[in-house]
Amino acid sequence: MNIPKSNFSEWFNSITKEANLCDLRYNLKGFIVFMPWAVMTMKKMYRIYEEELEAKGHVPALFPALIPESNFQGEKEHVKGFVPEAFWVTEAGGNKLEERYALRPTSETAMYPMYALWIQGLKDLPLKIYQSCQVWRHETKATKPFIRSREFHWIEAHNVFATREDALAQVKEDMEMAEKIIHNVFGVPFLFFKRPQWDKFAGAEDTFAADCLMPDGRVLQLPSTHMLGQNFSKAFNIKYTDAEGKSQYGWQTCYGPAISRIYAGVIATHGDDKGLVLPFSLAPIQIVIVPIYKAENKAKIDEECRKLLASLAGFSVKFDDSDNTPGFKYNQWEMKGVPIRIEIGERDLEKNSVMVVRRDNREKTSVPLNKLKESILNTAHSIDANIREKADARFNGKLRAASSMKELNSILDKDGGLVRIPFCTDSMDGEKCADKVKEECKGNVRGSLYGNKDVPKNEKCIVCEEKANVYLYVARQY
Amino acid sequence: MNIPKSNFSEWFNSITKEANLCDLRYNLKGFIVFMPWAVMTMKKMYRIYEEELEAKGHVPALFPALIPESNFQGEKEHVKGFVPEAFWVTEAGGNKLEERYALRPTSETAMYPMYALWIQGLKDLPLKIYQSCQVWRHETKATKPFIRSREFHWIEAHNVFATREDALAQVKEDMEMAEKIIHNVFGVPFLFFKRPQWDKFAGAEDTFAADCLMPDGRVLQLPSTHMLGQNFSKAFNIKYTDAEGKSQYGWQTCYGPAISRIYAGVIATHGDDKGLVLPFSLAPIQIVIVPIYKAENKAKIDEECRKLLASLAGFSVKFDDSDNTPGFKYNQWEMKGVPIRIEIGERDLEKNSVMVVRRDNREKTSVPLNKLKESILNTAHSIDANIREKADARFNGKLRAASSMKELNSILDKDGGLVRIPFCTDSMDGEKCADKVKEECKGNVRGSLYGNKDVPKNEKCIVCEEKANVYLYVARQY
Repeated sequence: MNIPKSNFSEWFNSITKEANLCDLRYNLKGFIVFMPWAVMTMKKMYRIYEEELEAKGHVPALFPALIPESNFQGEKEHVKGFVPEAFWVTEAGGNKLEERYALRPTSETAMYPMYALWIQGLKDLPLKIYQSCQVWRHETKATKPFIRSREFHWIEAHNVFATREDALAQVKEDMEMAEKIIHNVFGVPFLFFKRPQWDKFAGAEDTFAADCLMPDGRVLQLPSTHMLGQNFSKAFNIKYTDAEGKSQYGWQTCYGPAISRIYAGVIATHGDDKGLVLPFSLAPIQIVIVPIYKAENKAKIDEECRKLLASLAGFSVKFDDSDNTPGFKYNQWEMKGVPIRIEIGERDLEKNSVMVVRRDNREKTSVPLNKLKESILNTAHSIDANIREKADARFNGKLRAASSMKELNSILDKDGGLVRIPFCTDSMDGEKCADKVKEECKGNVRGSLYGNKDVPKNEKCIVCEEKANVYLYVARQY
Repeated sequence: MNIPKSNFSEWFNSITKEANLCDLRYNLKGFIVFMPWAVMTMKKMYRIYEEELEAKGHVPALFPALIPESNFQGEKEHVKGFVPEAFWVTEAGGNKLEERYALRPTSETAMYPMYALWIQGLKDLPLKIYQSCQVWRHETKATKPFIRSREFHWIEAHNVFATREDALAQVKEDMEMAEKIIHNVFGVPFLFFKRPQWDKFAGAEDTFAADCLMPDGRVLQLPSTHMLGQNFSKAFNIKYTDAEGKSQYGWQTCYGPAISRIYAGVIATHGDDKGLVLPFSLAPIQIVIVPIYKAENKAKIDEECRKLLASLAGFSVKFDDSDNTPGFKYNQWEMKGVPIRIEIGERDLEKNSVMVVRRDNREKTSVPLNKLKESILNTAHSIDANIREKADARFNGKLRAASSMKELNSILDKDGGLVRIPFCTDSMDGEKCADKVKEECKGNVRGSLYGNKDVPKNEKCIVCEEKANVYLYVARQY
């Protein structure tokens, strides 16, 4: 790595190239090739998320990637939000089609007409289905690998409940699931914000979205979960017969963890000047064994390395017996973010021990062979905890408050981060004040902090100077 | 199930509906919704295949689903084969595109331009990359769920080698992998045929494809692996510098296990008049616990069932405590193909035992609780072996030989199956004879049996009556 992480945007581009995470040379603008080192981690992330969704009662299905244009007619806001950025299939099998088919930009309009067929009575509820798939959106903003591209890899969970309360409980569960996985396992801190009405998912009643912070102080949106209310169930006629025999519209929610983007969060949060730093639980190779040869001991050292490799079954281990120098190997595997390196040389063998080197803090420890497995488990746990705690500390240091536009602007200029401001309202009426914040501070109003009940007393909106009714957070965004 | 399996085609449609494996009501012709019970099994199949591919040195990547039309220019046969059945994106973001993008019908034209960038020297070879994805083809033949639809779920592995021998070894390894997984684990018997020249993959030198047999005696093509030779490497300029410093074209192969279609093979091979029969290794629910209540012992029985559930951690177990009768539950879970049912009633409890019922042969055995785990493991193994052996016996009974068109036709009419015939040639010159076989017997020439070296001596082609140079197999196909 030639670029320090303090120069984040360039560091990020550089690490995606040097660690061979993606290739931007595919000849279609906004589309990238996801390379093996990235895909191996993304597969682990998918599995962890899918297992947790299934533990919470969601079941997997697979809906078509193509959606007839007529399906988009139902929910007006949704149409306005997604039709303009869709990719459209208009020809197939050598013929013009009678109707255009959208490549799914998201699957409400593919799934909900089917939900209307499946749901009859209370016995069919709740309906909790997810799919792991790609979606396509013709983004006009600048694309950046993993962060924003015209094709991305995500999970979408779409649920129907009998009551408003059940739906709200699902939204809460979705947020807790994000905390459990993205923060606790992947080590990426974030906060959930209830987005202002002018910035919610097209067709939702309310949107709750997780914002994490990039090292340059700008936010990156991670999963969002949407309280759809009955907007879609009315548009798609999703009804059930209640206990009294009355027909009722279902209450819906949907949840979209974008795995390829969360991966960007992992890279950005943990990486350092030497390259990637991966949580032990996500690394494609968790342990690399590097032999330190002296003249004439190669065969012996190799044999020990192979024994070691066999003894570490259950972990993902690479024995690097290439012709490169140890120094080259150290740099290479550090750049790739392999969490643990084991070095074996003559002196180690004499002591019946090996050298264990952590990627996160680069500590070296000599470990007796008979304690190695235990040491690996402890070190793995310690690495994941350490990088998470360091990330938490950095994140918490970037939560600030401002009481004027000037102060807001100066914090954003200096440190970025999420800055709390007193604000008139997060209803549609507040949008013009948000536009001013954007204009004057290049900041986006991210909404009110989920779960925080503080309200301003005797404070004024920093824009219009009317009575402030709510604390909202502002950040510059990716 | 109201339809016996002897009426296979209707049985198949019926089971996909009754077991809720798919929904055909999606409003786009040739597209289906893959429902949870099917997707849960397909996910296991994906995982088994991916793990084996990775064990053999393939690494996962993800290429764009959209392919610019200009990428299709290189390999002429490939263009002829795939361009006519592609779906084309022509509009995006509200604008007409300057160039059409195909939804990948297969990914050679997406991947190989990148391979040309990645491969420089011997150190870059072999290159073995796979992706798990969907492909789209505007099929004109009648669609049938899982067997043929316009969107299907598959894995495609694309490889580049330095030598012809390495490529041929890969083709062999692909076939062995199919045997190891599809036959040994999924229990579906098949044979690999080297397809005649007129029926190979568009752009390949040779195609080796697995044919399994449906209960009605017609064949279903499972994975195929293709020796691409240097056809694509020349078209896409995939070159490496050899040890002498000379520039050489790579040797390529590709391999396409279509998971959604192999799933059809599993359904068709093992199912019976009562519904699905799933291998233990693929069942979404492996064990269902059915309580047998008597008046007033419900709480006690439920408690025992829950203890049992906890003791079977590691298996996928469902405790069916619904209000349905035991008989209803038996039928339902048999129809869904759950391999093992455990019944617990008062009498079982008194004996400290439970009743274990196998789905495959419906044998009931009383098993002491302290032997249950061991019994489950043995039973699981025995079920998978039993259904595989029964399938093998049926398959082998349908391998026949004919020495005249009349005999061929009569075997195909009566039993179907794979029928060996002496044939003039499997080069392009043989196509007109194959057309006659099609015309007169509704049979497709599937090619020569891989690995079989027998050649006809003093026999004549059953069509043109010229000297027979090869034994080929004929079958009616899906």
